[in-house]
Amino acid sequence: MPGMMDTILDLGLNDRSVRGLAAATGDERFAHDCYRRMLQMFGETVFGVPAARFADELAAVKAARGVEDDLDLDAADLREVAERNKALCAEIAGREVPEDPREQLDLAIEAVLASWTTQRAGLYRRQHGIADDLGTAVNVQAMVYGNRGTASGSGVAFTRDPATGEPGDYGDFLMTAQGEDVVSGVRTAMPLSQLRDVDPASYRRLRSIMGTLERHYRDMCDIEFTVEDGRLWILQTRVGQRSPTAAFRIAVDLVDEGWITEDEALLMVTGEQLTQLLVPQLDLTSAGREVVVGLGASPGAAVGRIALDSATAVTMAGRGEDVILVRSETRPEDLPGMVAAKGVLTGRGGRTSHAAVVARGMGLPAVCGVDALEIDTDRRQVSLSGRPVFAEGDLISLDGASGQVFRGRHRTIASEVTRWLDEGVDGGSVAPAVARLLAHADSVRRLGVRANADSAADVSRAMRFGAEGIGLCRTEHMFLGDRRTFVERVLLGDEVERDQALHELTALQREGFAAILDAADGRSVTIRLLDAPLHEFLPDLTELSVRVAMARQQGSLTDAAVRRLAAVRRIHEENPMTGLRGVRLAILRPELARAQVSAAFEAAADLRERGRPFDLELMVPLVSAVEELDLVARLVGEVADEVAERRGRVPYRLGTMVETPRAAVVAGRLAERAEFLSLGTNDLTQLTWGISRDDAERAFLSQYREVGVLRTSPFESIDREGVGALVAMTVSGARGTGHRVPVGVCGEHAGDPTSIHVFEELGVDYVSCSPFRIPVARLEAGRAALLHPATAEPPGRSDAVRDGLVGAR
Amino acid sequence: MPGMMDTILDLGLNDRSVRGLAAATGDERFAHDCYRRMLQMFGETVFGVPAARFADELAAVKAARGVEDDLDLDAADLREVAERNKALCAEIAGREVPEDPREQLDLAIEAVLASWTTQRAGLYRRQHGIADDLGTAVNVQAMVYGNRGTASGSGVAFTRDPATGEPGDYGDFLMTAQGEDVVSGVRTAMPLSQLRDVDPASYRRLRSIMGTLERHYRDMCDIEFTVEDGRLWILQTRVGQRSPTAAFRIAVDLVDEGWITEDEALLMVTGEQLTQLLVPQLDLTSAGREVVVGLGASPGAAVGRIALDSATAVTMAGRGEDVILVRSETRPEDLPGMVAAKGVLTGRGGRTSHAAVVARGMGLPAVCGVDALEIDTDRRQVSLSGRPVFAEGDLISLDGASGQVFRGRHRTIASEVTRWLDEGVDGGSVAPAVARLLAHADSVRRLGVRANADSAADVSRAMRFGAEGIGLCRTEHMFLGDRRTFVERVLLGDEVERDQALHELTALQREGFAAILDAADGRSVTIRLLDAPLHEFLPDLTELSVRVAMARQQGSLTDAAVRRLAAVRRIHEENPMTGLRGVRLAILRPELARAQVSAAFEAAADLRERGRPFDLELMVPLVSAVEELDLVARLVGEVADEVAERRGRVPYRLGTMVETPRAAVVAGRLAERAEFLSLGTNDLTQLTWGISRDDAERAFLSQYREVGVLRTSPFESIDREGVGALVAMTVSGARGTGHRVPVGVCGEHAGDPTSIHVFEELGVDYVSCSPFRIPVARLEAGRAALLHPATAEPPGRSDAVRDGLVGAR
Repeated sequence: MPGMMDTILDLGLNDRSVRGLAAATGDERFAHDCYRRMLQMFGETVFGVPAARFADELAAVKAARGVEDDLDLDAADLREVAERNKALCAEIAGREVPEDPREQLDLAIEAVLASWTTQRAGLYRRQHGIADDLGTAVNVQAMVYGNRGTASGSGVAFTRDPATGEPGDYGDFLMTAQGEDVVSGVRTAMPLSQLRDVDPASYRRLRSIMGTLERHYRDMCDIEFTVEDGRLWILQTRVGQRSPTAAFRIAVDLVDEGWITEDEALLMVTGEQLTQLLVPQLDLTSAGREVVVGLGASPGAAVGRIALDSATAVTMAGRGEDVILVRSETRPEDLPGMVAAKGVLTGRGGRTSHAAVVARGMGLPAVCGVDALEIDTDRRQVSLSGRPVFAEGDLISLDGASGQVFRGRHRTIASEVTRWLDEGVDGGSVAPAVARLLAHADSVRRLGVRANADSAADVSRAMRFGAEGIGLCRTEHMFLGDRRTFVERVLLGDEVERDQALHELTALQREGFAAILDAADGRSVTIRLLDAPLHEFLPDLTELSVRVAMARQQGSLTDAAVRRLAAVRRIHEENPMTGLRGVRLAILRPELARAQVSAAFEAAADLRERGRPFDLELMVPLVSAVEELDLVARLVGEVADEVAERRGRVPYRLGTMVETPRAAVVAGRLAERAEFLSLGTNDLTQLTWGISRDDAERAFLSQYREVGVLRTSPFESIDREGVGALVAMTVSGARGTGHRVPVGVCGEHAGDPTSIHVFEELGVDYVSCSPFRIPVARLEAGRAALLHPATAEPPGRSDAVRDGLVGAR
Repeated sequence: MPGMMDTILDLGLNDRSVRGLAAATGDERFAHDCYRRMLQMFGETVFGVPAARFADELAAVKAARGVEDDLDLDAADLREVAERNKALCAEIAGREVPEDPREQLDLAIEAVLASWTTQRAGLYRRQHGIADDLGTAVNVQAMVYGNRGTASGSGVAFTRDPATGEPGDYGDFLMTAQGEDVVSGVRTAMPLSQLRDVDPASYRRLRSIMGTLERHYRDMCDIEFTVEDGRLWILQTRVGQRSPTAAFRIAVDLVDEGWITEDEALLMVTGEQLTQLLVPQLDLTSAGREVVVGLGASPGAAVGRIALDSATAVTMAGRGEDVILVRSETRPEDLPGMVAAKGVLTGRGGRTSHAAVVARGMGLPAVCGVDALEIDTDRRQVSLSGRPVFAEGDLISLDGASGQVFRGRHRTIASEVTRWLDEGVDGGSVAPAVARLLAHADSVRRLGVRANADSAADVSRAMRFGAEGIGLCRTEHMFLGDRRTFVERVLLGDEVERDQALHELTALQREGFAAILDAADGRSVTIRLLDAPLHEFLPDLTELSVRVAMARQQGSLTDAAVRRLAAVRRIHEENPMTGLRGVRLAILRPELARAQVSAAFEAAADLRERGRPFDLELMVPLVSAVEELDLVARLVGEVADEVAERRGRVPYRLGTMVETPRAAVVAGRLAERAEFLSLGTNDLTQLTWGISRDDAERAFLSQYREVGVLRTSPFESIDREGVGALVAMTVSGARGTGHRVPVGVCGEHAGDPTSIHVFEELGVDYVSCSPFRIPVARLEAGRAALLHPATAEPPGRSDAVRDGLVGAR
């Protein structure tokens, strides 16, 4: 892995052969320099002696000699360093570095192989989704010596700038040095261009080899080289690591230079790289140490003042302040605060917690899962592990990619790509490269890309980001926050109150739908009937019980409060996720569904009156049985007839979600009635695994990853083996005898690169994701179309695996 | 349907033809008798005039004439009755009975066809699982007249006694009467044997025809006949309805008489009939009207005094009283009260509510879903629709089959079959017939039948009832009730408390397991690791929050209470059903699983020391991924090694439950590691449908049946289309390349007749149900083996459908 390469140079030297090397080369200093290096690297890698201890020994000898540079140490000094290193190994490891070269080699090979199982390596693999059972390899290579003398040296070269992608050579080198010196920074390396002056012959030869390698690999290469006594050796080359900016620049340049096709260029960039280009970055040049590091849950940089609840966040933002919402965890009622905030920080929850999911959907930077974080709402303070660190109103900066949280204000660097996509601002060099590859992705992809959007603003942004339609408009998002009471009034109120609430609801949604359909400008909009579990709309039973009990004790209890508690208790569910929601609510409380459907038809009729185009789809959530769909289809038909009488017939298509395993099993029969199927992979994952996402994120998913049950959360990347089988069932059901209806995926997986490749492989027709993920989805859909069906293994993972393998020598 | 036959006799009569009939027969009285009958039956069936209104008219005429018997009315009287009936029809229906016979016939046919869609018919079909779209048929038959004169009559005959199954003719007849008179009881019918004296020729002829019919149908027949002027006519015959007792007796007698094979006899009885024979019955000969009727949730009769909570029930039972536990609904903590009670009555919940499921499992009579029931725990009273009807301590009697609840003590009649199976008491005639057919079922069935049992007493009873082993021993049932605190101490306590609790737990379970293995007498016992959701073991968050808030206000709050609330809140789950339970708990809190596994191995070792045989299986619940099973298998292996060192190796098999849809999808891979798979169809149904059973029973399952989404609750009979597909996947996975592991079903469906036929069809290897359902499971497994694969439609339902069709003419 990059930065985790276990390398032992100069292996084979011992007390005897060091003398032979001195004699053969006539350079005693060189021989002892090699020996002390070998002892250090062997000690570190095989015995696990900390590198700092070796540095201490070297520093002690330099101090005794009064020299600053290693190069000023003579042969005797270096022999002393070697002796000290040997002693250090014996002291720490309790055993000597063996003299026998064969034994040295065996131990070194074992150590490299064993490095696969270290905790650090395991963590790295989990983070990058690399299988634990792949294993690593060992290279044994003859030595050439960059520390052979002043006509020798070592360096690292890139065929293009790995940070910017600029063409032209790039790299560092050091004379009289072995490779580790360049990387470790014990001496300041020189830019590669200076090699032309120092050793013009080697420089010319290197340039020529770099050209050969780039043409061979047809990609930017990373090369390690050594010059031994004026003779150039190439130690290793690989396709070079690069920044996201460089990735796009290089890919496009290679096309223009005629080395690769646009297809190949598309395969050289990833959605993950694009994600990084879409979010603002913190300028950390001046940053001190972070105060705390949590889970990078939604990438991007945010700076603002702390607000400890949603209402405060809204108030502060109203005053024109930038706000960071800091909560133990967020719930649907925190949505207004999240909308008002520039960033979110939570104590509990992982990458698929409510805060993380909603933040990613909004393109809002978020750091989650800061376990040590505690919020004292009385004192308006934030503590870490019991120590108060921030007060409400304090300025903080956070990086939602790395999870770092800093005190104070740090400069943020806006994303050129986002400004160009969203605001049409033409800035910088990378945006055109991104635009070109996105256009190519659009031209090759088979998967449609739609957006999940609940407001006209979201719809417009989604369109600018390239969405082909709105695959999911969640009507319940129209009445969260303050509007929560609508549902409470419908469910718990008396008839008068219920009718009034329904009336207001219809008016509100009609206006909302009209704006959304208008913003979509004739592209399809899929409106989903109310889906959220009841408890998201009702008062919390525990809080209400406490309030009523207290009021009773204080003698201030009202009949209304008693009735309300009784109503909430009656309707309270042990397991709201699998309770009265979705189609069940539409069947049992049809007045709610009628209000929504009628609002949608009226909105469409309003648009038609104004001469505006629209394409309306209605979608029924949580269907498990054909009979459920039939009942709602009848209800929708009745409302359609009512509206038609007054305003003429409004065309629409009716589809169903596939969110329960049963719906996947009976997809063939659903597809005989529905005009489209849309996989709600969040719920489908919850039910297929029998895991409540919110509970599991808190309680056990992270531990499941640690003990190796899971590599990634099934809520982040689709579980190919389990949930994927149900997706495949749905697709095959949708292509039954005599019918062929489109199958989409809405939900978080639809914007996840790895999952998109799975959906391509399984034959899904379109994905629908949050607006900010649209460019990533377009890119990955294009890549998936190129890769499929060449490999059954999702390429996202293959990339990671390849990187891992190349890195670990 | 029986008792719901829409019949219109004498159709075609009108003001003109009645005169013709009188002239043709020379019997004016007869003609008018027919006419007034026709008008009444037409009025009832076509116009919906209540029968009581016609009875009033008849009574008025009789009163005016001063006669008691219809036979004493003369022609003029009967003409007046006919006129009154006509007027009544016109008054109530607002239209005349048509004169045109063709019009009469058309209206009559329409009315019979329309009777299919009445609410009452719909209810009947839902109760009997008959499809709504089957429709009904209409027979049009020429009339013969039993009211033609004294040499005429009508009757109903059975070829054997439908109540007891005794051979020999049985029935009723009336001279000078049409068939409706015999059924309606307006006159007291005579026993069939008297026909021999009244009309010996017809009697002999009828006897001969009865013999012919029984030989033809090879079953007991129900015959309607009419004698017209000394000539016998057979109007209709069908295979006769019979009591459960008669069903077994007749089936066995027909075998002995050589008419049918034992296979055929087995197909003539049902598990539902056997269930009724297994439970005590209320002797209702002296019963008045019931106080209320709920849902018959667990059959059997119970008499006892009302207890309004579990603790009171235990106390009262401790005093030697018979107790009926009356609750709004039951929860796991009510189990001690249910164990102490003779019967259960609840206000909320359907046939698959907690109360119903647990009661059926215990063979405890239960009436559930009495919506009007309210419990006032302050006044210790039970109200119905706001009116107090019972006080705690009052004597009530209930019938868990019909759902009736009576005031006071009614005699109960113990089940002969249960006494014979359970106590070896040889009583009565039916037990031998049951024994013989059960033995035959055992000889033909392919499905194994095991029991779910959590105590040695349950195991012993299961063995007496014919269980081949214990397919599910729920360890969590060992520490419900008072022992709940064990889990709380392990999860929430400090290290010392946790270790102490684990120590006690191990000792407790070791003793329990040893008793269970001992009682199983060498048959296999499948011990399942802790499965129940956390909230079943922890204090209720709402109650605790209220208590803490009140204590805080009263200044009596302790630090311990605050800590406990914080701990409960931390561990509280939004959706416990899909939270930290089963294998997840075993992986995250391995100390609990270790304690259980170690207790099981030690118990087995204890038995071996005592020279007793045992066959131990360990089962992991809620597995979704192979990796989970691997981790627990490793843990079990470690504990096995530890115990082996001290006490020698204990043989065991390790299996997994298939409760999540994902487990069904990956069953093939699970089967490579597990030695058996056991389908937990309760959870599998919850997850496949995305329905929380407890919530759904209260909130929408019954309404779903009413609107036709469901015919039966998927928690009662397995959902063949949806969940069945996952069962099939599991079975096919278990028979993968290179392995073949047994697949069982534990959970409520395993004892449900309809479901057992589905499991037979899908190739499941064994079912495991509660001890009281073992005989039913054996019987149905035998029947299923005979019927499969002749029909894909479960025969349980076909029976019901056939009955329905035969009934509705």
